[in-house]
Amino acid sequence: MTEQQAGIKLTPIPLSAEAFAPFGDVIEVRESVQHYLINEGNTLRYHDLAQLDVAAEDGRAIVSIFRSTPLAQPISIKLMERHPLGSQLFMPLCETPYLVVVAPKGEFDASKLSVFIANGEQGVNYHAGTWHHYCLALEHLSDFLVIDRAGPGNNCDQLQLDEQILINPDY
Amino acid sequence: MTEQQAGIKLTPIPLSAEAFAPFGDVIEVRESVQHYLINEGNTLRYHDLAQLDVAAEDGRAIVSIFRSTPLAQPISIKLMERHPLGSQLFMPLCETPYLVVVAPKGEFDASKLSVFIANGEQGVNYHAGTWHHYCLALEHLSDFLVIDRAGPGNNCDQLQLDEQILINPDY
Repeated sequence: MTEQQAGIKLTPIPLSAEAFAPFGDVIEVRESVQHYLINEGNTLRYHDLAQLDVAAEDGRAIVSIFRSTPLAQPISIKLMERHPLGSQLFMPLCETPYLVVVAPKGEFDASKLSVFIANGEQGVNYHAGTWHHYCLALEHLSDFLVIDRAGPGNNCDQLQLDEQILINPDY
Repeated sequence: MTEQQAGIKLTPIPLSAEAFAPFGDVIEVRESVQHYLINEGNTLRYHDLAQLDVAAEDGRAIVSIFRSTPLAQPISIKLMERHPLGSQLFMPLCETPYLVVVAPKGEFDASKLSVFIANGEQGVNYHAGTWHHYCLALEHLSDFLVIDRAGPGNNCDQLQLDEQILINPDY
């Protein structure tokens, strides 16, 4: 690798509730969450899986669908964002894996970036202030159900990165 | 058909936002909803698709996953419910069709039951007070993302039906 090609190379690790806890919630069926039978025994309810946090400054929760186009591989991370006034939840609707790129709240630090690969049955809920990349669909055009905040005030800070940051496509 | 076999037989019709409007919202990608490009042109946002209504009596929105087992065919409708204090949204996570059985708000009237078949890319949001059957998965065990209300007060009225009501399985 020449000097000019140097930069940060990130390798995705599998998404889990424990590893993602500093950044938000993982929305999934797992034994460790409260669950119980309802509907005459025909439905298992996995209960209250995300900390929705949207009420700041007269905010309210809204539901949208994001239809996302995969980026070219290898994926280059050039832009990060955070929502200071509310959480933002993404649930995949097509059972296709996708990437989740995050960094801790507070002053952005590229050396603290983490990349997770979500299986197609896992959603994520970014807590307010968590730095994250936008939706990184893989394989094909992918729909996500999104729960985020509508309301007054600036709720999106964006940061253009000047370092070369690539996601290792071999995972 | 003998006298004893008589009863109500319901035939599902395709779910659409227009037909479902008296009961709630259809959550789907369609041209008629507000949508626009975000994320450097890589994502289409279909914006604010459901009227979430969960704040009554100190309620709050929660996110759960319902894992539903299909009922035996032909499906018999014996139990209806309504949530007087909040909306309840179901979004399928496995792209599999399912049935939606509803009746208008107010005093329950079996002669006003409607059955819709949702394609696997359509969610529904029952408005507060709409009578509905619980989740009617088809084909296989199916997961749904659910957004409903947590909070004080009784938010579930159930009604056992004494008429024989079957859903025509030939649709």
